[in-house]
Amino acid sequence: MPVISPLAPAAFPVLPPIAGLDLAGIPIGLKRRPGARDLLLARFAPGTSVAGVLTRSLCASAPVEWCRAALRQGKARVLVVNSGNSNAFTGQSGRDLVADTVAAAAGLFGCAKHEVFVASTGVIGQPVARGHIAAKLPDASRALGPDAWADAAAAIMTTDTFPKASIRRIKIGGVPVTIAGIAKGSGMIAPDMATMLSFVFTDAAVTSPVLQQLLKRAADRSFNCITVDSDTSTSDTLLAFATGQARHAPIDSIEAARGLSRALDEVCIDLAQQIVRDGEGAQKFVTVEVTGAASPRAAKTIALSIANSPLVKTAIAGEDANWGRIVMAVGKAGEKAERDKLKIAIGGVPITEDGQARQDYDEAPVAAHMKTRDIRIAVDVGIGRGKARVWTCDLTHGYIDINGSYRS
Amino acid sequence: MPVISPLAPAAFPVLPPIAGLDLAGIPIGLKRRPGARDLLLARFAPGTSVAGVLTRSLCASAPVEWCRAALRQGKARVLVVNSGNSNAFTGQSGRDLVADTVAAAAGLFGCAKHEVFVASTGVIGQPVARGHIAAKLPDASRALGPDAWADAAAAIMTTDTFPKASIRRIKIGGVPVTIAGIAKGSGMIAPDMATMLSFVFTDAAVTSPVLQQLLKRAADRSFNCITVDSDTSTSDTLLAFATGQARHAPIDSIEAARGLSRALDEVCIDLAQQIVRDGEGAQKFVTVEVTGAASPRAAKTIALSIANSPLVKTAIAGEDANWGRIVMAVGKAGEKAERDKLKIAIGGVPITEDGQARQDYDEAPVAAHMKTRDIRIAVDVGIGRGKARVWTCDLTHGYIDINGSYRS
Repeated sequence: MPVISPLAPAAFPVLPPIAGLDLAGIPIGLKRRPGARDLLLARFAPGTSVAGVLTRSLCASAPVEWCRAALRQGKARVLVVNSGNSNAFTGQSGRDLVADTVAAAAGLFGCAKHEVFVASTGVIGQPVARGHIAAKLPDASRALGPDAWADAAAAIMTTDTFPKASIRRIKIGGVPVTIAGIAKGSGMIAPDMATMLSFVFTDAAVTSPVLQQLLKRAADRSFNCITVDSDTSTSDTLLAFATGQARHAPIDSIEAARGLSRALDEVCIDLAQQIVRDGEGAQKFVTVEVTGAASPRAAKTIALSIANSPLVKTAIAGEDANWGRIVMAVGKAGEKAERDKLKIAIGGVPITEDGQARQDYDEAPVAAHMKTRDIRIAVDVGIGRGKARVWTCDLTHGYIDINGSYRS
Repeated sequence: MPVISPLAPAAFPVLPPIAGLDLAGIPIGLKRRPGARDLLLARFAPGTSVAGVLTRSLCASAPVEWCRAALRQGKARVLVVNSGNSNAFTGQSGRDLVADTVAAAAGLFGCAKHEVFVASTGVIGQPVARGHIAAKLPDASRALGPDAWADAAAAIMTTDTFPKASIRRIKIGGVPVTIAGIAKGSGMIAPDMATMLSFVFTDAAVTSPVLQQLLKRAADRSFNCITVDSDTSTSDTLLAFATGQARHAPIDSIEAARGLSRALDEVCIDLAQQIVRDGEGAQKFVTVEVTGAASPRAAKTIALSIANSPLVKTAIAGEDANWGRIVMAVGKAGEKAERDKLKIAIGGVPITEDGQARQDYDEAPVAAHMKTRDIRIAVDVGIGRGKARVWTCDLTHGYIDINGSYRS
């Protein structure tokens, strides 16, 4: 087992049962390590709404294609997720594997096929034996229970060093509602899509069109604001399931969903940040805030140019307050910026003005900040009012170690 | 001194004098290592034409701004280049430094200021003492000579592990003409601009508008096809100087420049490839060829998505034939591609068809190819006729070592 990331939360959160949801996480032999859990099964009560945000990769996996089609119906009864193999770029055999799994799950739980959702994560391009997952569903079904959160979160991990979960409790019309989610990283992580895999569950009663709008917005504020290595997965899948078991008045409009929306945002941001905190080789968590850009979109492009720059990320790994590389990253972003109005601050310490270092710039507090685990970079590009915030991690020897030998 | 890149050419080429050109490379104390050469001076005969391609960074350095303006006149008598400090993001003091250097050079050599070209490379954001370079010009002037190629190439190096030069000899109207160039890398290297610094010299007689067209085309076929780390410098400068001392009929049209154009392309491609071969931490030279794209531009976007992918580059460093990551990089490029027509070959061995690995795929020859220094990746995306070729290197522990401690 790899060493747990130094940026990991202190503990796995305590997650309560969610009415209408049962979970299981069992080993089915797709991961190399004997006994490692690699199949997540979730069963939902009848009437569960579903929403999803999927990778924009043009080489999307067979499970992603299935979810894209099934989401049109908006209802879910079963979720089947495996790790250890992404079932991506596996051609007809990949589609057959999905079809077998879906048919077996629909038979086992007595639901329509379009109520079965699937996701896979792991190595690309290696077919799984046909029927392998379907054959394990009865075992997984027997393990289902309302409390198997830790098993479920473990079953979707790949190079992750810790399981990721988050929970918020709110009241809707006086009725207690729970929103809880799990996620996995931790390489091939880049924004402008959903993350690798994340599943959010709630007992709230909400229609699937409303849930879809809430989820899209939450993804834009969370998973779409993170990057580990600028590489976008073929399998990225974020799904939200609302069992509707909480006895509040059903939510059928965005206006009525304000509290749920805020809680969903918070859960997704927490999970997204945990993915960055478990970025391959990560030793530091980095927040990049860009203000003063021509538009929010321009601000995000600049923020990502900084967050994805190998030179910025290695400087952070080396605890070097090398702000010149931030200038470089702003300059290469291709978005409007005023070199001579550019304001860069690290750890809250202003560094630049008038197109150069400030006369009174003292590197000592910035150098001290660089030695911490939580690095804050703020850049104002002096053009307009667009702003954006993204999260990333440093680029270390650990990343090279992990990815120079992933398959072997 | 760092270990010389294993991808370096066997020897520095033998470069002859070029009529109308004198060179010097001397130490002036900008590099940390005592005695290291860090000032290049070049003197050109009256009538020398000049052309240039400069960084598109929006945070371009003061020397880049000067060259952009001076190029409009198309004539050159002097080139002054320092390493050890990029004079980028140095505000008014940076502009003062350029003004002092240019005025001193124009005075020393009796030419107009717009005939003096300057470039700087090294750390960003640290001012050089005013007049420091101007004060050293008389020393450099005394060192000028027709054979100082090695000193000149050494004087522009930063983290480079070997000096880079290239030469071609052609005949124009029966008259022998020489085209020779020098360049430096080796981090902050990304295409869609000129490279870090490269200077090409010829005794050909060619007008500056024609030379500019030839140089732009050569840059697009060479420096704009390489990437080390996707980071674009604030100082990238490619300048070509034609002294006109060769006694052929002067070239004043593109049609008449065919031989010169081919030789210039070859010199630029050789220099660009040498920059990749000296990419920070590089252990392998990688050629990525994309065919079957919707357009040449789309092909280049896909090729760069592969060449810049940290996961592809670390797999190559680990000698892992992980072609699934190439699928990922094609998928994330955002350009049209047919997943099920995608053809990937490594080292000439076809790997995929029908959206999966070929039935007869044998990894053994690909694994053997991955152990060589010269990795060839070919991808046909099955859409159209657009093609592109780019060059890059692998991403290794050496890159992290170099860039986690560059300033310290």
